[in-house]
Formats: sequence, C-alpha cells, structure tokens
Amino acid sequence: MTRADTKAIGERAEAMIQALATISAEEGKLTRLYLTPEHKRAATLVGNWMRRADLAVRMDAAGTMHGRMPAGRDGPRAKKRLLVGSHIDTVVHAGHYDGNFGVIAAILAVEEIHARGIALPFALEVLAFGDEEGVRYPKTLSTSSAIAGTIEPSVLDLVDANGMTMRAALAEFGGDPDHITAEAYDRADVLGFLEVHIEQGPILDQAHESLGVVSAIASQGRYRVHVRGEAGHAGTVPMAVRHDALAGAAEIIGMVEEVARKGTKASLVATVGEIKVTPGASNVIPGAAEFSLDVRASDDETRAAAATEIRRCAHQIGARRGLVVGVETMQEKPVAVCAPRLRHALSVGIRKVTGKPPRELMSGAGHDGQAMIRLTDIGMMFVRCRAGISHNPLEHVSIDDMGLAVEALVATIEEIAGEGT
Amino acid sequence: MTRADTKAIGERAEAMIQALATISAEEGKLTRLYLTPEHKRAATLVGNWMRRADLAVRMDAAGTMHGRMPAGRDGPRAKKRLLVGSHIDTVVHAGHYDGNFGVIAAILAVEEIHARGIALPFALEVLAFGDEEGVRYPKTLSTSSAIAGTIEPSVLDLVDANGMTMRAALAEFGGDPDHITAEAYDRADVLGFLEVHIEQGPILDQAHESLGVVSAIASQGRYRVHVRGEAGHAGTVPMAVRHDALAGAAEIIGMVEEVARKGTKASLVATVGEIKVTPGASNVIPGAAEFSLDVRASDDETRAAAATEIRRCAHQIGARRGLVVGVETMQEKPVAVCAPRLRHALSVGIRKVTGKPPRELMSGAGHDGQAMIRLTDIGMMFVRCRAGISHNPLEHVSIDDMGLAVEALVATIEEIAGEGT
Repeated sequence: MTRADTKAIGERAEAMIQALATISAEEGKLTRLYLTPEHKRAATLVGNWMRRADLAVRMDAAGTMHGRMPAGRDGPRAKKRLLVGSHIDTVVHAGHYDGNFGVIAAILAVEEIHARGIALPFALEVLAFGDEEGVRYPKTLSTSSAIAGTIEPSVLDLVDANGMTMRAALAEFGGDPDHITAEAYDRADVLGFLEVHIEQGPILDQAHESLGVVSAIASQGRYRVHVRGEAGHAGTVPMAVRHDALAGAAEIIGMVEEVARKGTKASLVATVGEIKVTPGASNVIPGAAEFSLDVRASDDETRAAAATEIRRCAHQIGARRGLVVGVETMQEKPVAVCAPRLRHALSVGIRKVTGKPPRELMSGAGHDGQAMIRLTDIGMMFVRCRAGISHNPLEHVSIDDMGLAVEALVATIEEIAGEGT
Repeated sequence: MTRADTKAIGERAEAMIQALATISAEEGKLTRLYLTPEHKRAATLVGNWMRRADLAVRMDAAGTMHGRMPAGRDGPRAKKRLLVGSHIDTVVHAGHYDGNFGVIAAILAVEEIHARGIALPFALEVLAFGDEEGVRYPKTLSTSSAIAGTIEPSVLDLVDANGMTMRAALAEFGGDPDHITAEAYDRADVLGFLEVHIEQGPILDQAHESLGVVSAIASQGRYRVHVRGEAGHAGTVPMAVRHDALAGAAEIIGMVEEVARKGTKASLVATVGEIKVTPGASNVIPGAAEFSLDVRASDDETRAAAATEIRRCAHQIGARRGLVVGVETMQEKPVAVCAPRLRHALSVGIRKVTGKPPRELMSGAGHDGQAMIRLTDIGMMFVRCRAGISHNPLEHVSIDDMGLAVEALVATIEEIAGEGT
C-alpha cells in the first residue's frame, strides 16, 4: 500500500460523506434524527454500500443496519464476530462526519480487506446505529442497547416533540417494536466492538496528530430542570414581588456554568442546550421554564458531585425566589473504559500507518460504546477534526486523515486477527 | 338607580365575559391573537351585542369594530363624537377581563343610556380594538393607530411566527390592507377617548377600592436581544474555550433584572418574556440565543436610561464572553398623560357611584390610549382585579365592581355631556 492509495481511500470516504450529507430533513443543512424518513433513506444507502462491499445485509428490529462478512478461514474463532461500526443519526444542523464517517470507514475497511485478499479468522460485522445523538427522544443509544441486550421495552413509550411514540416511529420506519429485545447478541459469540469516530474536541488538532486511541468514554448525566413561578403582566407587577421563572432559570444556568468551571482537573463540563418558557410572550412574566442539563466528567465521582451541587444550588435559588424547582434525572452513564487489548491493537494499527505511537485520550462525547460495553470489550479510534469543532456545520475532517483512519482500522483488524492464531 | 340594578349590570357583564372567554384558539384556555379566526368570531359576537344596543355597526379596514350612537339632541357638539372602548385580543393563556371588559362596559353603558332616556349632546362611538397585546406581531396598537392616523403601512409586512404577514392575515380576516391609513379620524370631530380597563396591578385591591382614575400610561420600550456565539459539542469543548450563547443570554437576563431593581422610585420594570435558542438540543452548546426585552417606567428618562444601561452592560457581557450581542429597538412609547378634563370627569363619575373621590394611579401596562393620544385627549378608568393578577388565567374581577364600573362610565359620560351645554 502506498500513500497514493491512502489518499484515494480518503477521497472515496469524502464522496460517501457528501452523499450521506444530502440526506437531511432540511435543504442545505444536515438534520437526520432517529426513525425519520431521512434516517430511513440513509439506512438504505448504507445498506447498498454494504452490499457493494459483499456484506450480507439486514436491518434489525430497532433500525440498526448490519452487514456481515463470514470468517475467511477456519479456526477456533471462525464462528465468532468482531463488530465494527458507528451511527448515522445526527444532531440538528450537524456536521457531516460525526458518526457517518465511522460507518463509512468500516465499509471501506471491508472493501480493502476483500481487495487485499486478507482472510480473517473470524466474521466481521459492520453496524450502522441510528440513535446515538438522543435528539428526538429523551433517552439515547437504544439501537446499540438492543444488540447489547440492555434495552428496556419502556423506551418505546417515549414521545418526541410532536407527541409521536418511539413505538409508532419505529413501526413506521419498518422496524419491529415487539422484537427489539430479541436482537441481543450472545456475549460468547462476540470478539469486541471497534468504532472509528471524529474526536469532536481539539486535542489531536492542537497536537498535529491524525489519529488517537480512546482510553475511556466520559461519565455522563442528562437532566431536565423544571422551574415554576407565577405568570403576570410585564408592566404592572413590581420587580420586588415577581416570581419570574425565566429569571430564576437564568440564575441557575449561570450557577451551572460556575460549578462546571471549577472541575477542570476531571474535564468537567456542563451544558444547557435547550430551554422552553411558558407562556412565552414578550409582555408576560414567564410562569414556567424548563431546560436540559448535560453534565460530563472523566470520572463518575466528579460528575455525580457536580450534579449534586447543581441540584442543591438550584433548589436554593428556587427557594430564595419563591419558585418551585425540580431536577429530573433522565439518564446517567458511568465511565466506559476501553479494553486494554483493543487499545493495544489500535495503537499497533495506527503506528503501522502513521509511523509513530498514537496518544491516548478521553472521549468527552458519548458513544454507542457506552451501551456495547455491556456486551463486549470496546475499542475506539479518534480521528482529528478541524479546531475540534463538532455538532456544527463547520465540522471538518481532511481527506488524508480519513484515508489514514481506514488504513489504520484495517491494520487494527489484522492485529486482532493475528492475536489468537 | 339602586344597588340591585348595579349588581344586575355586573351580572350581565359577567355573562358576556364568559361568552367571550369561550372564543379561543385553545379549548379550556383563552388565547385570542390579532386577526386569527377566534378574533373574527369574537368581533362578530361583539358586533351582534352592539346591534342589540341599537348601535350602527361596521368593521374598519384594520379589523376594529365600531358601534355608533348618534347625538340625542342638537347643539354645537352634535356632529362630534366621544369614543369609548378597549380591545378584544388577548395574550396566550390570558385572563378573561383584560380588554374584553372595557368593550363590554362600553356596550352596557350605551344600553343604560338608552334605557334611562339620556339624550347626549354628541355622538357616542364604541370601539373594539384588536391589536393591543402585540403577541402575534412584533409591533402593537395597529388598530388604534389606524384611527389615530399614525399607522405606517410598513407594519403590514411584519410576519408572525409562522411567516404569515400582517397583510395576508388582515386580508383573510376580512379587513382591507390597502385602506388602513384611510381610517384616520379628523381631530376636530372627536371629543376624547375613554377606556375602562382592569388595573392589572395590586394597588386598588390593596386599598380596598373598586375604581380608580389613571394619571398616565407608563413609558415603554420593546427590544429584541440577539446573542451569537459558537455551537459545539456539549461533551468535548472545555468550559474555558466555550462561546455559549445561552450562558451569555442568562447573564444578560440576570443583569436586566438587577438594573430594573434599582429603579423602584420611577416604577421601573424590565421583563424577558420569551427566549429562543439555536440549535436547541440538549447535547449541543447553544450557538445563538434571541430574547424579548420589555422595559417600562413612570417617566421617559428613567426608561431610556435603563435601556441604555442594559444595552451597555449587554455589550460588555458579550465582549467578555466572545459573543456578538445586538439590542434591536422594536418600539419605544413615551409616557401618555391622561387629559385633566377627562380625569376630572372620571373622578366625578366614580364619586357619584362609590360615594368617595377615587385615587389616581399610573398604568404600568400599555393601552390603546398610547396611540389614541395622538388623535385626541384620553381618559382611563381602572377597575380592581383580584391580587393584581393579570395576563394569567387567574385574573378576576368581581361582579359588583363590574356593575360599579359601568355605572361610573355612564356617570362620566353624563358629566362630559354637561360640560359644554
């Protein structure tokens, strides 16, 4: 293999990225939420790509696309499978690479494995998950949780902003709500789960490195904060007697920022990404406010302590202002530590391609690995993205880096293939 | 007239209030915005009531309902008219009395004038405006401005949240967008504008008084604050390098509250009633935020100084956080001072009914009088509402107070009738 080949692979990847990016709810912007018509179209395109790469394709009950390549040779692992994949759902006004590139990288790695006549001692299965971003429904990772065997059928009763249940959306999508728990894989059949993903942070870019190995996925909590005050006329209620729900929410948001700023050592971050005020008119004092809260850290204790402090301070602010404040826990995920053996294989694979040992770094972003770790060992490769920008249309990955990532994934799979023979 | 009559009038008013309250965009809640189908149904009902009170009814080009009673006797003022009215649009999840009671009080006063055989030396015209709350479009008072001759045709290009222009909405309503400026009344033909309105504040309730006379309508400014930052992934961008538009907006909202709290002497109030964040997902750092700002005070200087300070501090907060902040002025209305001769007439009228001289109080709320003062003298009667609660479904006015208000309005009109004879 030459650098020219690598560049050609990167160009293939970029063409596929652009093709997927056109599949959106909005013209000129990428928004592709779980179980939407655009998710379905993207899944169909990915299925076609999988077939072209000679994979046996099926869509499972929860909407994940599977593309399976049987083992290339006999041996003790011939009935087992290594899982490789990422997700094809996006945030609102998303970048093009988040998730999508991981699925494309896996498919291109399969193509290279075929093209180079590499006979793997195990089956390889490419996965394209559909519910990683958690934008449409208040819970996330349902597609990978189905495979990991940890999905709870109650998620089907969750409703989106239009009041549509996940059950109805999944049925309309062509999934099978009644059989999502039947998708669970047998732990004994699986060798591990590998994911290639853009870093979504600035570390590799600042270090001028193309690829890195993930040590762990951060501890993450999602909460919903409810603030109830009293609506009133904006012109007649003196400031001193107001119970303004938005003014209270604003103070809580400021406090959240302050709490998070104190936790730099453990990479603590806290974000209020979405807020809703009722009644929501310019001349009415807000009677209620409700907002999202996302808290992450490199260890569970820091994240839990921050959530506790935020909850305590939010109640104090509410009490002082005569507001009723509630902090609802939507989801809490512990740190997911990547398996040393897969970290080693990734390190070897990356080194083969870049010529130097990669750095290990933590993932602040959540990933399907947080669900897959309940089934099997996980390993993640990070790819540099420009200025660390993600969840933003400015998200960018170079063609060279994408080519290197696919090559490194092939080399990693070969390394794993060599382990047990 | 006896107290029993007054109570009967109050009961009539309450029945009419309930009838109007059922005309809403939402079942069980009152929401009736300018030029909506429910506004049309309310206008039709009010037109029917006007006809039953023997008024000559027409709807004007901007959607105001007019009910005219000719002068009852000859004389120098027989060709002139006294205007009496209020508005029938509401805020979202409104109370039942705001605006609606003023229109009902005017119609019931006409009924009493007929019933008691009072021959007025001038024409009386009842007006039911439709755009006092300013919820649907970013400007307000267009219906009264049309009559005052100050409407600008450019308001027709304003769009609501669904992208519908006022022009299209007015045409669909049955108005005449091309002739809104032709509705201007001739200053020489008009004797004044009287409005009965609920106080929407706590002063009369705390003083245990049914009725009061408005001295002036507060100085009011409406602004729109735009905050632009940078969207990013909620898990990977360290707190120190974020440009979170909502965190900046929250700090500005806190500052607005602080500025307003310093202005108690001039009844300064400032309210952020509505906020919108983009992209608005729980796992994305907000890239932009936009919110309303409403500032009012008992004098123009205090209001302008507060707006200037808010603007200055907002820019400082933006600069410190690496955010672009813009404060757009939507509308600024100077203090509207009620005419001494109408304040006197109202005072005499109220005293006749309650037996004691009423107090004068400022209106923190905006009213159609702010537009009508450009045409003629304005006078306003305030009616006590429970706990001062308004713009809220808990808004309440007693049957007794409504009866007294109608009686006092009749007495005020009689007092004005007596002035020039």
